[in-house]
Amino acid sequence: MDALDRALQKSGAVAYVMTGSSEYADMRYLTRFTTTDPIIYVRSAGERGWIIVSQMEYARAQQEAITRVMTRADAGLFRILEEEKDRWRALARMVANLVEGAILIPPDFPYALGRHLDALTGVMTDTGTVSLMRAKKSRKEVIAIEKVQRSAERAMLHAIDSIRRSKSRNGMLWLGGKPLTSERIRSEMHALLIHEGCIARDTILSCGKDTAMPHNKGTGQLFEDEPIVIDIFPRSEQTGYHSDMTRTVVKGNPSQEIKEMFDAVKTAQDLAASIIKPGISGEVVHQAVVDFFASRGYGTKGEGYIHSLGHGVGLEVHELPSLGPGGDRLIRGNVVTNEPGLYYEKVGGIRLENIGLVTQTGFRTITKFPCELVI
Amino acid sequence: MDALDRALQKSGAVAYVMTGSSEYADMRYLTRFTTTDPIIYVRSAGERGWIIVSQMEYARAQQEAITRVMTRADAGLFRILEEEKDRWRALARMVANLVEGAILIPPDFPYALGRHLDALTGVMTDTGTVSLMRAKKSRKEVIAIEKVQRSAERAMLHAIDSIRRSKSRNGMLWLGGKPLTSERIRSEMHALLIHEGCIARDTILSCGKDTAMPHNKGTGQLFEDEPIVIDIFPRSEQTGYHSDMTRTVVKGNPSQEIKEMFDAVKTAQDLAASIIKPGISGEVVHQAVVDFFASRGYGTKGEGYIHSLGHGVGLEVHELPSLGPGGDRLIRGNVVTNEPGLYYEKVGGIRLENIGLVTQTGFRTITKFPCELVI
Repeated sequence: MDALDRALQKSGAVAYVMTGSSEYADMRYLTRFTTTDPIIYVRSAGERGWIIVSQMEYARAQQEAITRVMTRADAGLFRILEEEKDRWRALARMVANLVEGAILIPPDFPYALGRHLDALTGVMTDTGTVSLMRAKKSRKEVIAIEKVQRSAERAMLHAIDSIRRSKSRNGMLWLGGKPLTSERIRSEMHALLIHEGCIARDTILSCGKDTAMPHNKGTGQLFEDEPIVIDIFPRSEQTGYHSDMTRTVVKGNPSQEIKEMFDAVKTAQDLAASIIKPGISGEVVHQAVVDFFASRGYGTKGEGYIHSLGHGVGLEVHELPSLGPGGDRLIRGNVVTNEPGLYYEKVGGIRLENIGLVTQTGFRTITKFPCELVI
Repeated sequence: MDALDRALQKSGAVAYVMTGSSEYADMRYLTRFTTTDPIIYVRSAGERGWIIVSQMEYARAQQEAITRVMTRADAGLFRILEEEKDRWRALARMVANLVEGAILIPPDFPYALGRHLDALTGVMTDTGTVSLMRAKKSRKEVIAIEKVQRSAERAMLHAIDSIRRSKSRNGMLWLGGKPLTSERIRSEMHALLIHEGCIARDTILSCGKDTAMPHNKGTGQLFEDEPIVIDIFPRSEQTGYHSDMTRTVVKGNPSQEIKEMFDAVKTAQDLAASIIKPGISGEVVHQAVVDFFASRGYGTKGEGYIHSLGHGVGLEVHELPSLGPGGDRLIRGNVVTNEPGLYYEKVGGIRLENIGLVTQTGFRTITKFPCELVI
């Protein structure tokens, strides 16, 4: 009996239903089936559940999925579609025919399908049981995340080595006779990750003023004496698990302000790592960093420390638990980022991001990569 | 006044609201803002609309988005969260404070948010206006898709060249002294695409019996005399647009059955390309291919022609219109795949996939790549 069975029991519903492709992490988690087309998942308490797939996916789903598999034809969809023009209504009837009683759905279930089902069987909204299940990682999941993290570190090493080996001419960085650009390093990191079986997207390689925007991807030639923020969050093609890491480096001589910001961020990260443990809330850990930054004169309004300390990492890059305002109590098995940052429009940004595992007694940092500002 | 304004007018709602990250294609389409975290979009008739983002994304959103931008703080979220524990209810109250009247939402809007909004403002479900808008491509979108397609063709050329240059030993393929595997070619194609600024996922490189499952990705060493299905659907990192293409090749001597299947699939593809034009329905085009296959003795039940002829391609790999059962009338500006296939468990599968543009008078195939079975 898992948390979903308990949620079913508590709600009085007879089955949990969700829909989506395997990009919908809950779907991948509960089925282990990979599909780009949306499928439907139906599970009664205490059983493995069913997925309903197209005829074309049937054989592959039987091989891959940890659920039982039914085709849409077997579930009666095409017969129903002869009577119902509306696709959502037809899907609702198909599902209603499979269950006898009220249905529990996730809060982000498609509205149109939910309303039709509500009329047919009654619907109750779950509060996010599967997201909470996903937040506690098994040993196998931790190993999958560690594997991606090692690949991320090889890509990070390549990026930082390229910057280190570059030469400055009139303040701009050059390597191998060509401009060293954000796009060039990003593309080389992504190619390296492909060969590791990982896909990275939207990798940040920002420089100078761009670093003051935490999610600015960066563009153009890099330059010396300014912070370069490198933030990469690859996903394993095979397992679907992510990692997430950030380093900030300067080629040349950073300003005094940047040096002080880096020291504060590094210290904040160590502080957070020292207090994370089961039972403490994500909000309290975040607040400890807010307070520490305040003690060094860095605020949180508009500039300064303008994001949360961290988030869970797994089948999604951002998942539960949150280390931020409203963040719940951490439990053993959470894998979270620890990523303080400081951002000032006129100075630039500094962010350092590790991931780690909440253990029985504390926090084991998974990331094994040095943190040096000047390279 | 665009189709969304007309939908608003017709429904009597005062604003269209949706939520999602830019992975939700409607969001990227209407905002042109890229974000991995979900944001909220609110648009009244006749205006550009607003997105509501985190403080941290505000500056970047102002640069990138074609909408106006508001922070969650400005929209009052944090004040509301002090009173409301439930996140979905708080979001609903935040949105309700911004509009005066009923709201139109897409059918896949999150159920919990939709129910809370319904109680606050009244909610009407749209039938998919934005998906229909996305199905008709602008000149700029067609150019973006053509660009990805050219990259896909360079990756396909690399794959087919590798198979062509390979040597067979005891029926297995070798290249450069190493086994020529599905994984190796896939990884080389993906790396090549990275350098073209494209990301490919779940590329299919299946061989032999695996080809009888249309979405089997394939694994292990390739072998001679058997069909090898190569299906790639990269996405441009910069624009977000996709392409989609498939070729089937044999190194060595295919069986007579495979040769006949290939000829039938190729002829079916030419047939479809010759009849696609504005005004014809996707269902009719698909049915023409069903009938043609039937005339050659190939059925559609369990084995044979077991999927639809095609689908729209754009910000999603699979989008409107459908060339399949229930497929609506095609219009000028649709970009669709033309991908007949035949699959038999004991023989294997053949699929050939081009993309093309529905023009004023017919169908212009965008794909420029030869179709040869034996290489």
